[in-house]
Amino acid sequence: MVTSDVEKADAPTIAERDTLSKRESGVTSASPMRLRMESFIKSKQEEIVRELEQLDGTRFTVDKWERPNGGGGITCVLQDGKVFEKAGVNTSIVYGSLPRPAIAKMRINHKALDPDVESLEFFAAGLSMVLHPHNPMAPTVHLNYRYFETANADGTPNAWWFGGGTDLTPSYLFDEDAIHFHRTIKDACDAHDKGYFPRFKKWCDEYFNVKHRHETRGVGGIFFDDLDQEEKDQEQLFSFVQDCLDAFLPSYMPIIRRRKDMPYTEKEKAWQQLRRGRYVEFNLVHDRGTAFGLQTPGARIESILMSLPLTARWQYMHEPEKGSREERMVSVLQKPVDWV
Amino acid sequence: MVTSDVEKADAPTIAERDTLSKRESGVTSASPMRLRMESFIKSKQEEIVRELEQLDGTRFTVDKWERPNGGGGITCVLQDGKVFEKAGVNTSIVYGSLPRPAIAKMRINHKALDPDVESLEFFAAGLSMVLHPHNPMAPTVHLNYRYFETANADGTPNAWWFGGGTDLTPSYLFDEDAIHFHRTIKDACDAHDKGYFPRFKKWCDEYFNVKHRHETRGVGGIFFDDLDQEEKDQEQLFSFVQDCLDAFLPSYMPIIRRRKDMPYTEKEKAWQQLRRGRYVEFNLVHDRGTAFGLQTPGARIESILMSLPLTARWQYMHEPEKGSREERMVSVLQKPVDWV
Repeated sequence: MVTSDVEKADAPTIAERDTLSKRESGVTSASPMRLRMESFIKSKQEEIVRELEQLDGTRFTVDKWERPNGGGGITCVLQDGKVFEKAGVNTSIVYGSLPRPAIAKMRINHKALDPDVESLEFFAAGLSMVLHPHNPMAPTVHLNYRYFETANADGTPNAWWFGGGTDLTPSYLFDEDAIHFHRTIKDACDAHDKGYFPRFKKWCDEYFNVKHRHETRGVGGIFFDDLDQEEKDQEQLFSFVQDCLDAFLPSYMPIIRRRKDMPYTEKEKAWQQLRRGRYVEFNLVHDRGTAFGLQTPGARIESILMSLPLTARWQYMHEPEKGSREERMVSVLQKPVDWV
Repeated sequence: MVTSDVEKADAPTIAERDTLSKRESGVTSASPMRLRMESFIKSKQEEIVRELEQLDGTRFTVDKWERPNGGGGITCVLQDGKVFEKAGVNTSIVYGSLPRPAIAKMRINHKALDPDVESLEFFAAGLSMVLHPHNPMAPTVHLNYRYFETANADGTPNAWWFGGGTDLTPSYLFDEDAIHFHRTIKDACDAHDKGYFPRFKKWCDEYFNVKHRHETRGVGGIFFDDLDQEEKDQEQLFSFVQDCLDAFLPSYMPIIRRRKDMPYTEKEKAWQQLRRGRYVEFNLVHDRGTAFGLQTPGARIESILMSLPLTARWQYMHEPEKGSREERMVSVLQKPVDWV
């Protein structure tokens, strides 16, 4: 198809096409993946927020925000609740334009990307969540699932991929919690590909690594990125990501219910605060998503940094006592365990 | 001078030369700058630690550590004292080897560096200090002065430079404190070059910038780097750095004495904790020194991260009240002031 420059400039952006399509016919299984993913993560966000509000007995603050060039997000935060010190459940939809150097970098993992264009329109949709409970016996949990797509000038998809994962970060280790969390995720993975869980569990241990401390952030879970048509077809991958996200409540709710009202000492609370400090170190020093967000002009900083705990502590040369539960926790972080 | 590979391999390292020289003749004004800087910062460290112990009524913990290839450090930390929540005064001496890519990067600022070698021996000596007081009316202060040198194969200096600075980070702004701090530093600068203070004050505002928040870290001070023979001769620059370091106690002690026992409310303490969170954000996300340290294999992480506060807080969407002291503090951070 030959298009003159004038026609090109007049062509609707994918943001405009999507707005029109949603208005005219809603979102169905025949809609583009962009709209199906957006619709799916928003409904999951509602479901998760509802469930957490019921558990905590506190309402989330809901901030809806729009981006000038299309897209926007919903940031739901619960602060100083009865169960959660801080809980954030965030969806964001981004329409934007990738410059040539960013395209070149992405081509390493996605050969479908056209190297001969000056810029490409892109779309990104994701759900991100971090829950930090008050009780030091109750683990922090993180989850993120996202879909990324680049578009040709006529609005058809050029390249696309899914990424995401979830990981559990206890201050005190209860083996049964780690086993339950991993078991639930493994079941979701196994339904799609027996190879997924071992592959993505390893990727998780490698990614959520506080390198300068020689410790993983927590007891792991799964992590994957860049899953595209070389992995499986789009429908299969979407279905996999849906099952992963559906597995969240069953993976975490039994754990938080067991731990939220356990008795604890001041010393145990202080240990949790030190572990929160390590969480901050990972998120600010090593997490690529956070770094990308903080560098993005016009990014909504408060939504990105909702992942940080309400409070954290850094104590010089703190060493857990020999034979203590704190020491066992650290030793597991230094040498990841296969829980299932 | 032509040296065979065998002779080269047998040539003493600068670490070995320095050890020998110290043992044989001590450190005098005729010694190499490496040894004079090391001796100077160690004596200042002792003096500052003594003064702070007297103020706080608490002793510092002193950790001396050695590096396998020469050099080492002294980390002095006071934790949970009467005046200071956490105070660290650290000297470190590093002998090492720069690989070719690192040399190429440094050549941008130092033309004297030989681009045609595979590696260069280097030396670095620095004093770093961060003091976080308990009282939210008392400001955090940071200081760092350092000397860097690369050596030819025969042990003579190839390139050298000084860097450093100091900056003040209040949670509540007392104009008289900011004025006193800047005035004292300016006097030290003016004795050497009337151009230094305005130049290095601007550099400080640019460097200690929490870019993603569009705020400076605090009310500034001075910052400089890469000062070499193109700036002034080595003796003059050493004398300048000595005067800067000598100015520290006069710049900060009157402030901490005025503020350490002021009454404050719980709400003011909570605001300080939020500001501590911003301090952590700067140090972990933007500070080049911290990033370099965390990436250095075998680095002493506890010495690098002694700069982090004992406790910090992140609250979603916190906004200071209109017309409050907290709001005025933030507005000054958004638009740096010329205090003198």
